[in-house]
Amino acid sequence: MMNCELHDDTITAGGDAVSELYDRGFYGRVKGETLELSLVEGAYLLYRKKIEIFSDGTAIDFKMFFEIASKRLRDFELRYIVFKDLRERGYYTKMSPIGFRLYPRGGHPTKTRAHIFVYVVSERTSLPLQHLIRELNRAENARKRLILAIVDEESDITFYELKRVTMSGETAEPAAGEIKAPAVASLLNDRTIIWDPEVSNLLHNKYFFGKKLDEFRLQLSLVESGYLLDRQLIRIDNADANADTDTSAFDRCASETEPAYGLKYPVYSDLRRSGLVAKTGFKFGTHFRVYKQFKSDTHSEYLVHTIPPDHQFLLPELSRAVRISNSVHKRMIFGRPDADGSGVCYIEFEWIRL
Amino acid sequence: MMNCELHDDTITAGGDAVSELYDRGFYGRVKGETLELSLVEGAYLLYRKKIEIFSDGTAIDFKMFFEIASKRLRDFELRYIVFKDLRERGYYTKMSPIGFRLYPRGGHPTKTRAHIFVYVVSERTSLPLQHLIRELNRAENARKRLILAIVDEESDITFYELKRVTMSGETAEPAAGEIKAPAVASLLNDRTIIWDPEVSNLLHNKYFFGKKLDEFRLQLSLVESGYLLDRQLIRIDNADANADTDTSAFDRCASETEPAYGLKYPVYSDLRRSGLVAKTGFKFGTHFRVYKQFKSDTHSEYLVHTIPPDHQFLLPELSRAVRISNSVHKRMIFGRPDADGSGVCYIEFEWIRL
Repeated sequence: MMNCELHDDTITAGGDAVSELYDRGFYGRVKGETLELSLVEGAYLLYRKKIEIFSDGTAIDFKMFFEIASKRLRDFELRYIVFKDLRERGYYTKMSPIGFRLYPRGGHPTKTRAHIFVYVVSERTSLPLQHLIRELNRAENARKRLILAIVDEESDITFYELKRVTMSGETAEPAAGEIKAPAVASLLNDRTIIWDPEVSNLLHNKYFFGKKLDEFRLQLSLVESGYLLDRQLIRIDNADANADTDTSAFDRCASETEPAYGLKYPVYSDLRRSGLVAKTGFKFGTHFRVYKQFKSDTHSEYLVHTIPPDHQFLLPELSRAVRISNSVHKRMIFGRPDADGSGVCYIEFEWIRL
Repeated sequence: MMNCELHDDTITAGGDAVSELYDRGFYGRVKGETLELSLVEGAYLLYRKKIEIFSDGTAIDFKMFFEIASKRLRDFELRYIVFKDLRERGYYTKMSPIGFRLYPRGGHPTKTRAHIFVYVVSERTSLPLQHLIRELNRAENARKRLILAIVDEESDITFYELKRVTMSGETAEPAAGEIKAPAVASLLNDRTIIWDPEVSNLLHNKYFFGKKLDEFRLQLSLVESGYLLDRQLIRIDNADANADTDTSAFDRCASETEPAYGLKYPVYSDLRRSGLVAKTGFKFGTHFRVYKQFKSDTHSEYLVHTIPPDHQFLLPELSRAVRISNSVHKRMIFGRPDADGSGVCYIEFEWIRL
């Protein structure tokens, strides 16, 4: 066993440590003749009985060390749990500000480059979207994958890979000339009804809008209504809904009925413009389920939930969303409309086993 | 076709209506020589071209009737959608203040009793727990089942059956004499560690507490720690955690780390007292997954989420919770601690196809 010395948040090992611990196991950082271990590495080597740790000449046992370290390093226990898990499954890691840099299985610091950033968080943390986008940018610039390691209250770890994605599909948008005059629709609280059987069938059968109320009439959701209104394919004629096809009046009215309308609409119309068909994701607890190509027997490929720029992810909620999408074989995407209205930033969370 | 007259929110049909509409289809309520139809029944019979509706001598078409009715009756469109769906699938219904009374398939008003209350709501409604408990009590007193019919923005209907349930399992609680002196544990932010290998093994292997940190030590979640502290099976000895086994100090500390602790703890300990083993439900987005009997190869039977007495169910969230529990073959239960600390009220939401 090797003697090490604890100072603040570094453990220094001299003598044979470089050959014993670094060359064989890639623990720590070589500093001249000595080896510097992080608190997490120190705890793990202490548990493995590879080192003894002294502070001011006194040996520290595992319990004492754990208590000290958890005061000196934020999320020490979490990092220890993730480090131990990864090490014991054959991964080499280096410390990083947000967690670890991870080497591919079979790779190590003198052979390969780290290919993954592991971001360690507690299930109790709320994760600001802006924070995640910053880490995504860093990872992209460094050509690494970004993986979130969430430690739950029983110290189980769930890994999610984060990716920016481009959404595109194959469904055309309704052409301007296809409907001669805007079709008459009535706004009834939180849905509208198109009364003309021909327009109803065209919009439903060819472009997959709404749901048939019966063989003659089509019901539209608020975002669908807003979209068709915007393209002057329908007009709303009942008095309570401001009697005209003015889209900004409709927007106000829709936002009152559905507070998330202002967030959902830009994402809905961006998806439509990108050739995708978005329908309600209510049964999955998300804003939309999204089809690349809509046919009666196809399943949707994505669940899309819209979030504002200042969104904070609550991890139990995130866990639920990803879990559902997984159980129904869909990809879980979060969509944040750009502040300038130019587009939408789509981020995928994929549940992975490392 | 039969002529009817609309007054306020009632449609009156005379002459042959009783024999034509009531005796054959159980529409409306017989009032002497005439038949009174509700707005929803009226709209459906108008669509089916069974009646014509007049107001002040003028015939009203379907569009006009729909617009009038949706102003006169709250949630008219929703009720119409649910009514049409149930009728067309062979169910007879009667109007009720919250939606419908439903007759068993093959049954009808002159033959059987209604056996179900259908409670119609929009996905946008938030449903107060107190409201649901009131309706559950009514249904129980009338010996009927209570079914929630949630209409989403695309007019799809999801049915949930609500039930009060008694939770009980077969796992013993740790006996008082089994551990001689309370075992030493350290509180490290949001988990505690028991250092004694023997106690760790006993609590983990026999009573299914915590997760092993390694072969010697056991990590406990906050609720587990609180429970064992309460039963004087552990004591917390690190200075930051108030240095003693005082449970109220621990409660304060745990509630600071985990705001839901005060809600989760009474449910956790009620489940334990009832012979159930509750572990974190993080992966499912709920507070607990719950086992009747815990073995390494068993699956949990329930997901349990705790809610305060003034909880408002947001229906997309509820939908997500029930969907997940379904996909993993577990029962979705919400637990509300009684205000007087005497117990917990458990309510199950089961996704059903009517």
